[in-house]
Amino acid sequence: MAAPAVVLVRPREEGNVGSAARAMANMGLSRLFLVEPAAALGGTARAFAVGARAVLDGVVRAPSLPEALAPFRRVVGTTSTRDRRLGIPFLTPRELPLWLAQDPPDTPTALVFGPEVGGLTNEELALAGAVVTIPCSPVQPTLNLAQAVLILAYELFLDRGDTPAGDAWEEPPAEAGEIDGLLAHAADVLTEVGFARDDSFAGVLRDLRRLAARAAPASRDVRILRGICRRVQGALKKGEV
Amino acid sequence: MAAPAVVLVRPREEGNVGSAARAMANMGLSRLFLVEPAAALGGTARAFAVGARAVLDGVVRAPSLPEALAPFRRVVGTTSTRDRRLGIPFLTPRELPLWLAQDPPDTPTALVFGPEVGGLTNEELALAGAVVTIPCSPVQPTLNLAQAVLILAYELFLDRGDTPAGDAWEEPPAEAGEIDGLLAHAADVLTEVGFARDDSFAGVLRDLRRLAARAAPASRDVRILRGICRRVQGALKKGEV
Repeated sequence: MAAPAVVLVRPREEGNVGSAARAMANMGLSRLFLVEPAAALGGTARAFAVGARAVLDGVVRAPSLPEALAPFRRVVGTTSTRDRRLGIPFLTPRELPLWLAQDPPDTPTALVFGPEVGGLTNEELALAGAVVTIPCSPVQPTLNLAQAVLILAYELFLDRGDTPAGDAWEEPPAEAGEIDGLLAHAADVLTEVGFARDDSFAGVLRDLRRLAARAAPASRDVRILRGICRRVQGALKKGEV
Repeated sequence: MAAPAVVLVRPREEGNVGSAARAMANMGLSRLFLVEPAAALGGTARAFAVGARAVLDGVVRAPSLPEALAPFRRVVGTTSTRDRRLGIPFLTPRELPLWLAQDPPDTPTALVFGPEVGGLTNEELALAGAVVTIPCSPVQPTLNLAQAVLILAYELFLDRGDTPAGDAWEEPPAEAGEIDGLLAHAADVLTEVGFARDDSFAGVLRDLRRLAARAAPASRDVRILRGICRRVQGALKKGEV
């Protein structure tokens, strides 16, 4: 998946912009847009950004949210309060990668965060295709701006994979290449049983990919499922003879 | 699971302690210990804590890490760099709830974070039963102290459950009976392709059940997978004729 851009709408505190830049760099994001009026970025922003000055140096300022969003085909809003009347799907941060996976991985995507006080307006949220609400204690339900950026960036970073697993007290999830191999093998079997002639074939392959992403099978699970594919292929071949 | 305590070892910046307190309150944690020498907590700490002043007001200061850890039966350390020589299991934040679930849920637990510069020493990490490393871009591999606290607290908060799911842009997970039907159908297919004669058959069925539980397939997914089973059975039958 291409790394999304972060759009901060009217951030008031330059320290928050610096902290957000640091969190972005921590999680491999680099493109930061600010919608005016936004804090001037001086020494405080740089101090909070620590090693992420490149993110600050690359900041793009836009006079309005629609203008900031012009380069993007897909927009994800954020809010601490769900307003059902919006009619836009609400997601948890953990659901976000799956929702994004419905579109091609290089779809230009913006993650939009509102000002420290008040957040995004309903009019701004209406520009989004989905809205993320970070689960939070009802006692203290609003996160700091940079903390909210971190949570979304963290979930997307984990989803992009190639992060080292912990020590093997459980089996680590299979790598993307192993999953690809399994799905290709399954597609072969489905072709051999005549499924490829169906109109629904492409949709079924997409559903299987989504299901595999969510199941996070271990390498051993992938080996078992490929073993089943091989068995089915063997039985089909035997039938032909 | 009883909410763990957070122990900050020699934090230098009171703003970080305030931000950590806010992140804790966001994710339902309340007990904060500081190991001396730690920042004095004044107006800056309170400003960063926003609504989490109760966490700051309840801070317990300890002269050393071992003294801070005295009330705890289980200690989780954190570090940005894995030193294999420590001989302590390394976990990702996402693995932490599963690791903690090995012990009774009311086991008194401390999450220990090192100073802003340098982190925990190996001697301090050696007091931990497990060490968490937050996945990060190698370009900017160290998180702000409060950001690290947030990530661990977030993973534990999600694990404690009762957080609302997102909207049903995805179908809800299938019911247990549907999963049972799918697994029985899969067992039939495996029997038909000759798998049931294998010693590993019972183990494979167990693995499939575990995988299905983790994948949480929707009713629609179950229908698709059963459709695949039927196709395979159809193709096998045709071969026999």
